[in-house]
Amino acid sequence: MFVLGIDPGLTTTGYGLIGEGPRMVLAGVIRTDPAAPTPERLLELHRDLLGILAEHRPVVMAIEQVFSNRNLQTVASVGRASGVALLAAAQCGVAAFEYTPSSVKRAVAGYGSATKEQVQRMVAARLHLAQPPTPPDAADALAVAICHLQSAALIGRLEAAR
Amino acid sequence: MFVLGIDPGLTTTGYGLIGEGPRMVLAGVIRTDPAAPTPERLLELHRDLLGILAEHRPVVMAIEQVFSNRNLQTVASVGRASGVALLAAAQCGVAAFEYTPSSVKRAVAGYGSATKEQVQRMVAARLHLAQPPTPPDAADALAVAICHLQSAALIGRLEAAR
Repeated sequence: MFVLGIDPGLTTTGYGLIGEGPRMVLAGVIRTDPAAPTPERLLELHRDLLGILAEHRPVVMAIEQVFSNRNLQTVASVGRASGVALLAAAQCGVAAFEYTPSSVKRAVAGYGSATKEQVQRMVAARLHLAQPPTPPDAADALAVAICHLQSAALIGRLEAAR
Repeated sequence: MFVLGIDPGLTTTGYGLIGEGPRMVLAGVIRTDPAAPTPERLLELHRDLLGILAEHRPVVMAIEQVFSNRNLQTVASVGRASGVALLAAAQCGVAAFEYTPSSVKRAVAGYGSATKEQVQRMVAARLHLAQPPTPPDAADALAVAICHLQSAALIGRLEAAR
């Protein structure tokens, strides 16, 4: 089961695909030009995400939620990027699950207030990589995917135990 | 020149198309089921907006900006809906312009702190309608379109005066 993790943003959207193991299949970022009009940037993000979904056919998209940032402009901007990502998932028939930043940190690093660096080191350790994947947004996307795999495994064990 | 005004929201997106005059061509709302998963709701919103854009071929989309709401969850949710609306505009080659709620109020009712009811009465008056269009989200969308027409006319006059 392939899970595509997404760390959404208008300027930089991180993506990371993991398979069972878990192992990393691919990771990277989609960047859009901050000088371009927002609709064009959303169009580019949407096109690139559709390309990744079509090529790698993940079963699930796991995406970081945006509610917790205190800056309204950032929340609105990330909201647009995540809206376009969720739309792309629905258009490709890929189920999407959302996770808050603190639940991602808790799943990957063991506690909800872990630093970005701790999360990135744990991502590398969990995926048996010598170093944290770069850029950081790609590692963050992998963390969301790991969070989903772990939640799904936990739910599976709970259901099996009943 | 047809302008499509959009008052974005995940549960209810108002739309209103106006032509020169200004006169109202059509107005209404797109509603999505609050019980459905967000990706499906965004898919429905996107599909309906593409349908309106394809059928009526506006030259411009004028859309209300979401930064000013104090509730982070609302900003994130409206951000998603507006991201999908801006994407639909870009996919149809329609130029999109964003206006803050206070600039819409100022353009339509004369001052930025006008009440919703004042704006709706002024929308009816400006479009020579006997009553404010309903539901309110449709009237709000028409207000954004009027705001754009007025800004465009003002810029035209300023350029002509140079």
